[in-house]
Amino acid sequence: MDAPEFDDAFRAQLHTLLAWRRDVRRFRGDPLPAGGIERLIATACLAPSVGLSQPWRFVIVDVPERRAAVRASFAACNAAALAAQHGEDAARYARLKLAGLDDAPCQLAVFADTASARGHGLGRRTMPETLEYSVVTAIHTLWLAARAEGIGVGWVSILDPAAVTAALDVPASWRLVAHLCVGYPEQADDTPALLRSGWEERLPAEDTIIRR
Amino acid sequence: MDAPEFDDAFRAQLHTLLAWRRDVRRFRGDPLPAGGIERLIATACLAPSVGLSQPWRFVIVDVPERRAAVRASFAACNAAALAAQHGEDAARYARLKLAGLDDAPCQLAVFADTASARGHGLGRRTMPETLEYSVVTAIHTLWLAARAEGIGVGWVSILDPAAVTAALDVPASWRLVAHLCVGYPEQADDTPALLRSGWEERLPAEDTIIRR
Repeated sequence: MDAPEFDDAFRAQLHTLLAWRRDVRRFRGDPLPAGGIERLIATACLAPSVGLSQPWRFVIVDVPERRAAVRASFAACNAAALAAQHGEDAARYARLKLAGLDDAPCQLAVFADTASARGHGLGRRTMPETLEYSVVTAIHTLWLAARAEGIGVGWVSILDPAAVTAALDVPASWRLVAHLCVGYPEQADDTPALLRSGWEERLPAEDTIIRR
Repeated sequence: MDAPEFDDAFRAQLHTLLAWRRDVRRFRGDPLPAGGIERLIATACLAPSVGLSQPWRFVIVDVPERRAAVRASFAACNAAALAAQHGEDAARYARLKLAGLDDAPCQLAVFADTASARGHGLGRRTMPETLEYSVVTAIHTLWLAARAEGIGVGWVSILDPAAVTAALDVPASWRLVAHLCVGYPEQADDTPALLRSGWEERLPAEDTIIRR
């Protein structure tokens, strides 16, 4: 197979995709197309992984009791986070909508399998966290592929990983990396919600670079 | 600005990009275009980050003594990793080329700034590792944007993070996430080197999914 050549038009569209990918918290209720989440997961499996360990494990969460347990963990953790905020930050925090757990038609918990022998340990003796990092690249791949189909993803991290892991009855060696809400967004935007709401500002790219 | 619509042709090209992205270890010596790495970093800053914390910090490593210190850390860690392999695995490990540190024209160390107040802690009380995960999505964004320009990226993790952090003289609160080699690859490929060499096999996507 010949190596692909990408042109300026593709690069411009890729930049647009990156600029319009959002962490979505407001979803329409209509479901994903049949087979849609499985197809996005297959694309996610193209992600890089340390030692080709492919440690990503995807849990499609449909059982109402399990969803309710995840929702309860979010509620408890979010209340604790709100209580830890002070003054104006607390008021601003309370106004944010931080999860689409009640609305998103699809919920996907993503874990790192820390017990798999795949990869034979290559590349993670001194930086074992690269196993979880590999799962993050798979999540990001899924996120971009979803956005290219008009599907939004929201990453919920205001959760107790132990509670979510127990609620989903997965092997003890699986480590929760993310709980994702997936569905059609209420609206598209090229500006992060936390920027629009005044929670945080953009850090100029040049301020992130030093030379050594 | 109107929300973009992505079509089948773009989605097919995005899939091709994901399939032909490689962890590159063999680089041609020619340099990146002037301003190229800074442009890729600016694109990487479009990545998602927990609480809009934008914790990514990029260190462009050009000073020969600093590059030599990183190279020495790789050599020591790689020798230790080889010594820990046994039998046929050791022989196969010894045949792998695991870093492009001698060849890549550009070296980029990427850190998470764990001391920044940006994001006001949002989203990382219960899962603080989402700070480093945010940096991983920036690295993956840079990786894809680079490949779309025909530029390869190789992620080196066979390193002692403390040694690299010291060699680069960065703030103590910065945590090393990755050391990247960046340059034009010797060849394009749609198959990971570790698959070609027989180190590991592809895990079918359907084997990564469970339902709960």
